[in-house]
Amino acid sequence: MTRTGVWLIGARGNVATLAVVGARAVARDLTATTGMVTAREPASRLDLPAIDDLVFGGHDVHSGSLVASARRHQERNGVPDRDVLDAVEPDLAAVDERVRPGVAVNTGPAVSESADDLRSADSLRDAVEALRADYAEFQTNDDLDRVVVVNVASTEPPLADPDRYDTREAVERAIDEDDPDLPASALYAYAALAEGHPYANFTPSTGSDLGGLREMAREENVPHVGKDGKTGETLVKSALAPMFAGRNLRVLSWEGHNVLGNEDGRVLEDEANEAGKLTSKGGVLDGILPDIGHNRVRIDYTPSLNDWKTAWDYIHFEGFLETEMTMQFTWEGSDSALAAPLVIDLARLLAYADEHGEGGLQRHLASFFKAPLDVDEHDFSRQVDMLDEYVRRHADGSDVERVPTEGEE
Amino acid sequence: MTRTGVWLIGARGNVATLAVVGARAVARDLTATTGMVTAREPASRLDLPAIDDLVFGGHDVHSGSLVASARRHQERNGVPDRDVLDAVEPDLAAVDERVRPGVAVNTGPAVSESADDLRSADSLRDAVEALRADYAEFQTNDDLDRVVVVNVASTEPPLADPDRYDTREAVERAIDEDDPDLPASALYAYAALAEGHPYANFTPSTGSDLGGLREMAREENVPHVGKDGKTGETLVKSALAPMFAGRNLRVLSWEGHNVLGNEDGRVLEDEANEAGKLTSKGGVLDGILPDIGHNRVRIDYTPSLNDWKTAWDYIHFEGFLETEMTMQFTWEGSDSALAAPLVIDLARLLAYADEHGEGGLQRHLASFFKAPLDVDEHDFSRQVDMLDEYVRRHADGSDVERVPTEGEE
Amino acid sequence: MTRTGVWLIGARGNVATLAVVGARAVARDLTATTGMVTAREPASRLDLPAIDDLVFGGHDVHSGSLVASARRHQERNGVPDRDVLDAVEPDLAAVDERVRPGVAVNTGPAVSESADDLRSADSLRDAVEALRADYAEFQTNDDLDRVVVVNVASTEPPLADPDRYDTREAVERAIDEDDPDLPASALYAYAALAEGHPYANFTPSTGSDLGGLREMAREENVPHVGKDGKTGETLVKSALAPMFAGRNLRVLSWEGHNVLGNEDGRVLEDEANEAGKLTSKGGVLDGILPDIGHNRVRIDYTPSLNDWKTAWDYIHFEGFLETEMTMQFTWEGSDSALAAPLVIDLARLLAYADEHGEGGLQRHLASFFKAPLDVDEHDFSRQVDMLDEYVRRHADGSDVERVPTEGEE
Amino acid sequence: MTRTGVWLIGARGNVATLAVVGARAVARDLTATTGMVTAREPASRLDLPAIDDLVFGGHDVHSGSLVASARRHQERNGVPDRDVLDAVEPDLAAVDERVRPGVAVNTGPAVSESADDLRSADSLRDAVEALRADYAEFQTNDDLDRVVVVNVASTEPPLADPDRYDTREAVERAIDEDDPDLPASALYAYAALAEGHPYANFTPSTGSDLGGLREMAREENVPHVGKDGKTGETLVKSALAPMFAGRNLRVLSWEGHNVLGNEDGRVLEDEANEAGKLTSKGGVLDGILPDIGHNRVRIDYTPSLNDWKTAWDYIHFEGFLETEMTMQFTWEGSDSALAAPLVIDLARLLAYADEHGEGGLQRHLASFFKAPLDVDEHDFSRQVDMLDEYVRRHADGSDVERVPTEGEE
Repeated sequence: MTRTGVWLIGARGNVATLAVVGARAVARDLTATTGMVTAREPASRLDLPAIDDLVFGGHDVHSGSLVASARRHQERNGVPDRDVLDAVEPDLAAVDERVRPGVAVNTGPAVSESADDLRSADSLRDAVEALRADYAEFQTNDDLDRVVVVNVASTEPPLADPDRYDTREAVERAIDEDDPDLPASALYAYAALAEGHPYANFTPSTGSDLGGLREMAREENVPHVGKDGKTGETLVKSALAPMFAGRNLRVLSWEGHNVLGNEDGRVLEDEANEAGKLTSKGGVLDGILPDIGHNRVRIDYTPSLNDWKTAWDYIHFEGFLETEMTMQFTWEGSDSALAAPLVIDLARLLAYADEHGEGGLQRHLASFFKAPLDVDEHDFSRQVDMLDEYVRRHADGSDVERVPTEGEE
Repeated sequence: MTRTGVWLIGARGNVATLAVVGARAVARDLTATTGMVTAREPASRLDLPAIDDLVFGGHDVHSGSLVASARRHQERNGVPDRDVLDAVEPDLAAVDERVRPGVAVNTGPAVSESADDLRSADSLRDAVEALRADYAEFQTNDDLDRVVVVNVASTEPPLADPDRYDTREAVERAIDEDDPDLPASALYAYAALAEGHPYANFTPSTGSDLGGLREMAREENVPHVGKDGKTGETLVKSALAPMFAGRNLRVLSWEGHNVLGNEDGRVLEDEANEAGKLTSKGGVLDGILPDIGHNRVRIDYTPSLNDWKTAWDYIHFEGFLETEMTMQFTWEGSDSALAAPLVIDLARLLAYADEHGEGGLQRHLASFFKAPLDVDEHDFSRQVDMLDEYVRRHADGSDVERVPTEGEE
Repeated sequence: MTRTGVWLIGARGNVATLAVVGARAVARDLTATTGMVTAREPASRLDLPAIDDLVFGGHDVHSGSLVASARRHQERNGVPDRDVLDAVEPDLAAVDERVRPGVAVNTGPAVSESADDLRSADSLRDAVEALRADYAEFQTNDDLDRVVVVNVASTEPPLADPDRYDTREAVERAIDEDDPDLPASALYAYAALAEGHPYANFTPSTGSDLGGLREMAREENVPHVGKDGKTGETLVKSALAPMFAGRNLRVLSWEGHNVLGNEDGRVLEDEANEAGKLTSKGGVLDGILPDIGHNRVRIDYTPSLNDWKTAWDYIHFEGFLETEMTMQFTWEGSDSALAAPLVIDLARLLAYADEHGEGGLQRHLASFFKAPLDVDEHDFSRQVDMLDEYVRRHADGSDVERVPTEGEE
Repeated sequence: MTRTGVWLIGARGNVATLAVVGARAVARDLTATTGMVTAREPASRLDLPAIDDLVFGGHDVHSGSLVASARRHQERNGVPDRDVLDAVEPDLAAVDERVRPGVAVNTGPAVSESADDLRSADSLRDAVEALRADYAEFQTNDDLDRVVVVNVASTEPPLADPDRYDTREAVERAIDEDDPDLPASALYAYAALAEGHPYANFTPSTGSDLGGLREMAREENVPHVGKDGKTGETLVKSALAPMFAGRNLRVLSWEGHNVLGNEDGRVLEDEANEAGKLTSKGGVLDGILPDIGHNRVRIDYTPSLNDWKTAWDYIHFEGFLETEMTMQFTWEGSDSALAAPLVIDLARLLAYADEHGEGGLQRHLASFFKAPLDVDEHDFSRQVDMLDEYVRRHADGSDVERVPTEGEE
């Protein structure tokens, strides 16, 4: 296809770092595409931007570099392989040149207090303009056909009463009046949509999940999607819970206990930031098992584990003749290594949608998210079917028949 | 609907016992329908035979009684509740009156050596005639509109070279010539189909899984389905494996270790009988994850566990950038309490198909089985979709439009 | 030996109920002594009070009855067996006659707000006198040679600054001056020691763990012991942690997550009450593994589990050449069934010590407790050795040579 | 102390490789002594040979090199760290110079068929003489004060009827008469004892575990010890099982399932070789829990796991009032990284015993072994006490008072 820019909010974080390392390692033929959904049938049949045509840049509020992040990640987690890292280090250094200071308004003290690479701005409107300028400069300097913006920054505290931003006008006014609550993630999203850049929110933060921003995406026909990448325990839940539903087994209690030790874990130690995460995680079970008796998720910070998100889930359920049974699982996944390929997938799929003029919410990407916007289906297999169905429709050459977008319902 | 007979092969075993206890407890309003697929949406919308209109009988090769089986099961496993058992005991006693001696040809020494309630017969043809007479007598004596035969007997050793029975003629000849290999489960199935009784094989034994019997079912337009009820570890596999496939994660090894202590476990101690079981269990993963590196299933007999089938599965998989990760689960389920409601479901659904003239293989029931005949789809969610789709087609009143059956493809 | 009274603080709770049910079931030869430490070698060689010579009574602040508690426990947890319960019901009813209203000062709102069977008293001194009178009446009415008091009531919030009660005089003054902080558990302990009754504290509450009460026990030569019965996850920790220490493996993190659904769990939902518990639980690991990197314990209330205390522990450790490894375990124990036999053990062993004139702290009973008073050894095997050593000294007839008690060091 | 040679049987295997890498890394101050028992209190108080005074050599029947083994181990398991490996590579190369071809008589086809670096010998006596010459040459060439021989080779099939070698004379005769059953491990042990070299058997193979060899060790006053290093699942069992015993809990079933993917695992795929291992492993539980109901251990070969020995143990037990409960654990340990430091410990402790003239069986080292010769105590804490007691006796300067050795009982 074409030269596609991928602009990562949180560009020096673990997920961004592994995404860039991985994309460059694939491009240099040093690793396989395992873990990438767009590398498997049937999505691989779509005419997506080639991985070596992706150009990376981004914002971050913490100083440092991708090279340093990658080295640290390697030392702590043994991933990526050192030879791979040595080979792609020049590529990372090139991306480092394209990282700009970010904004941290309303991201909670756990993020903002450690932020040390902040874009100065006199007002929200100034901040937004600066972000737009960064996106534009990226596209121009690197001669890109298209820029996709992906939020992979730390989780913000949940926004109270989001309905007040339910129209495009309300959002514009909030920005103009220096609204004290509008969080950074919404500013990045606004700036992307305003510039016509496809946008994905891989975090539980607000991002494009405001009525006003959705309206804007529809009106401007810009593809967007979110939110909260489904990579670990919640992914497993979305595969397992339908089994209990399908067999009419009654889940009495589902306890989930996550421990992890990366930056994400550190930020989630702050209860305010954790609240946003837990809402997304809890919703999957409530959606699939409306009669669930007890549903609790805990996330704890355990430094020694670094990026290894370890989750223990205990499921107490009842079957025929009131027989009580249990199932438990332990998931030990490298959170960033699970997330990184999905970031690449989303960038490619959003670029594809944009190329085909398919603006608005991209519901067929629900399988990527814990809290897919406007999609009630949480069963992972059925969400995958939605993507496969999309692929089949497009790969047949029947691209003319566009997917229904939000505005047209 | 109508008065439906349910004839259970292995009528005094755990699964049969709990199925009868449960059906009667539901009929007497002493327990909920938890665990029954036909009690949930959308299957509950079909006009199925009412649970209190089901009449049970069956064959068994071991002496004893359902009352004694139920008491023993209660003492060992705490299920069913004693009050429930007291209340349904007269119903069990009535079913005991309808249990007839069975046949145990080619069931392996683990079964045949302990068999002590055998129907005497001079030849296979005699045996088959006797079984047919038993079915017929059941229907007449109990004034039944229809009889559904369900195999819930112990697992037989796998049949070598089943292709030799690929035509109806070959099966008939094998029976006439007292073939030394044809197993008991096939005789029961033959007898059922010959009499026009719908047939379900809940075990990994041969049952109706012979080309000749399938031909017969098509020609006589008798619904049948199988095989090997999916109730525990394999059920979980069929829900989880699609997650790895859907995310393009490479499973390096999947170890499954089952321990259980009931009669089923005792019979599976015999390696010959175990072989049949392992084939069904292993196939699910190979179907969903064609590139799986290593796939082993073990079943061990641990007497103290009784009916509590406990399985530990350990999954070693690789993600992006060659990152190796693991997931493990422990399943502790009461095998019979999971199987029993499905037996009732199958009886009701086969009766329904028969009532609607839908003979041949019932592919929409694939979700019930580890090795669904003629269905390659092992993803549990998608199998459930097949059933839901069937229900929607029928519940809309569009019953006229019959499901395509095997013979018509 | 002799007729021994066992006075249970929290007499209608789960632990007390199962202790009484079990003692009576053993006395009536309806169950084995599995789970009782005094029934195994070498402790079984001591000349302890016979189980059928134990007479039970107690205090409780919640109305109800042991009969009702036992029935409820049976229904929810399947334990005890119904036949056993039927047989001992008259014995339970007899004990119910001997239960008196209790006091609930400073037990935290989770306890005191639900308390509905409270002894009225105008002052702490009045309350203490009433408790003493109850003990005395029990001894007289039931013609007992000795009364042992065991605290099995719900956990109190931890007492701030316990050093202010460091002398007997300070305790007396606090009682006389209606001290607003002195908790109920200390009043029960004071009353017991004042009357010369041996006392055991099976809970994390204060009980006899005040300098002033220890002084009193020494001066009056009354045996006492505590605190916080070691029955589940912490028991396992005290067996496993020495393995890491003995092999010089470095524990980086030890996460413990407990879920349970009984009254104990409900009270621990209150953070104040939970604090006391977590202190005892955490101390074991810190004692055995002084260099542990991260040590967290969580207790969550999960109603559907009832008395089944389920714990998942995840241990991340480092070996030679910085190799990081993990171990995890899941414990599924019936908390009360694990605690109940130990209550009987403690009553018998304290009666024995009292009979032999061994007053003061009973350090040889450390293996029973999470936070054994004045004992630093937390290795379970070594704690068991302390008991075995005591037994050997006494069983050899060398009873003359008394164990050193606190006052004599 | 002095210059001590450590002669490793199986010198190119994983355990030997990591032991050499680790010893050299410690000597070069590149890693900590985590995992070494002699580095912790109180054993660290003994005047043991310094780690940088250890000189390594050995036999192997497979060609290759330690350098290659270490590289392969690093790539497959991520251990040791690459920087460490780079630093010690010259040391490994020096050890490679001192590795001699071994003998593989009666080691089973799984070993002997892959053996490609065999010492040629016309008879058993010739073979023994050659081994002795190798040991002697090592001592002379490297100017060593003492040589300790440690068997870390692959597991042999168990020896049938070992009693026939019950005297020194019988062993001598067997060697002279080219006995067809005497396994290689016994020849290595014989050669060591004949030369007066202390000997440790870290494997389940026969080694010095023959009456005749024990007699020889006593007569020649050579220290020896064995067998089967306790490093993973069995270590955990020996810590946990005493907990069940100490609380009088009845273990109904203890299932242990081990999966691993290293050379050890490959050899154990051969049922004959596995038999020896399972005997050692099973004995620990039978020793601690004589009334155990069911005790099974499985070892399966799962290539993708490499050196990561993963074990799942499921314990079904009964407590008071017949309450059935369960505990399960999963152990994920790097087998070689756990074994390697113990090999260094044993070499140091045997050198110490030899220096102090303490020949014969070294019972105080029981904590290192699954099947400690002549020691019935399997409780890990108590075994550690045996070592600590030894240390205290010696560290006090009271070395004069020698530990009782086998011959003096």
